[in-house]
Amino acid sequence: MKDRIEVVENIMGANDRLAADNRAKLDKHHIFSINLMASPGAGKTSLIENTVPALKDKFRIAAVDGDIATSIDADRAAAVGAAAVQINTGGECHLDAVMLRQALNQIDLPQTDLLVVENVGNLICPASFALGTHKSVLVASIPEGDDKPYKYPGIYRGVDVLIINKIDLLPYIPFRMEYFRQGVEMLNPGLKTFPLSCKTGEGVQEWLEWLELQVTAFKETSK
Amino acid sequence: MKDRIEVVENIMGANDRLAADNRAKLDKHHIFSINLMASPGAGKTSLIENTVPALKDKFRIAAVDGDIATSIDADRAAAVGAAAVQINTGGECHLDAVMLRQALNQIDLPQTDLLVVENVGNLICPASFALGTHKSVLVASIPEGDDKPYKYPGIYRGVDVLIINKIDLLPYIPFRMEYFRQGVEMLNPGLKTFPLSCKTGEGVQEWLEWLELQVTAFKETSK
Repeated sequence: MKDRIEVVENIMGANDRLAADNRAKLDKHHIFSINLMASPGAGKTSLIENTVPALKDKFRIAAVDGDIATSIDADRAAAVGAAAVQINTGGECHLDAVMLRQALNQIDLPQTDLLVVENVGNLICPASFALGTHKSVLVASIPEGDDKPYKYPGIYRGVDVLIINKIDLLPYIPFRMEYFRQGVEMLNPGLKTFPLSCKTGEGVQEWLEWLELQVTAFKETSK
Repeated sequence: MKDRIEVVENIMGANDRLAADNRAKLDKHHIFSINLMASPGAGKTSLIENTVPALKDKFRIAAVDGDIATSIDADRAAAVGAAAVQINTGGECHLDAVMLRQALNQIDLPQTDLLVVENVGNLICPASFALGTHKSVLVASIPEGDDKPYKYPGIYRGVDVLIINKIDLLPYIPFRMEYFRQGVEMLNPGLKTFPLSCKTGEGVQEWLEWLELQVTAFKETSK
């Protein structure tokens, strides 16, 4: 048992060091970066499809899409105008700092202002692996149900921003928003939250304004 | 690298041996068992809530609910009449054969006909760990999107039955059923599939009839 703990600690220590390297590289190039995490199908790629076209005249945007198979997500990110890099994890259930480092080598960093990393669809494992990005964004969605903060506390506890996607489905699904928000508040008090619908566009503007402010402010302060 | 592969092989070998032990124990007691897997919020617990009340006069049903935190699911399974055992995985992203073995020790096996194991909400990791159950059942859901077979091939390839839940939401979501089914067919030709809605009850009867037939047939053949 002791051996096993040491192995885990070594892996996590190595990941954290590489994440710090990634962060330093991003900082050096004044690139603001986010790590998008969510359940399968919550809307990470749809959020990118709503974000890139709205901001691409203001910022040069790169997307890194992690998936266990296929390039469906990277193709969708590229289709809306991001410089997209696919990471095929080969079955792994999360991205780690090594994978992001390899992806960064394929990106024209001096020509990038905003990096969006789309993690593998999974509410558990991605939360344990720092990538070096500046902010972690969790995309929840109405059809997943209102008990998810209670059932997946680790990821809710560790993020900087929460997006509640698919609010257009609220009339058709029993979802107690108050119960959901109480769970979030308990784990992550005051968490910045954007309820929105990538399908109808409702609420997306608030998210875009927040993100634009972050990228602009980061460019200033990191110089 | 060689060491790492050997460690992984040892872990998987040990898990497979324990899974075989679990299976032998279930067979000995003539208990038909299923391993329910799905994304977070696809409807595993809702399926149990639709299944147990309908079959509990015919069979004695036990439920094992795996979760990384809380007993929400086991409480829901118990509320509808199953003998429910909670496995708190302590952060682990999947159930394994050791955890099921521990749960089986808490179940009155001679008084059980059907065991429903609800895995942790995750489309990746649970597919890699055999538990010893007789059939693997994947619960997909309409809001997850029609590209999931293509993006999570491992789990679609390895299951015996597919439930497509939340068909009541089809009018509100762009979901190309033909595209989804083509992906499934490519990975798992002829896979037994039940489109249904745990909310409206549509299609649930077909699933119940299939399950009832399995439990009855297993009781006969395992004697």
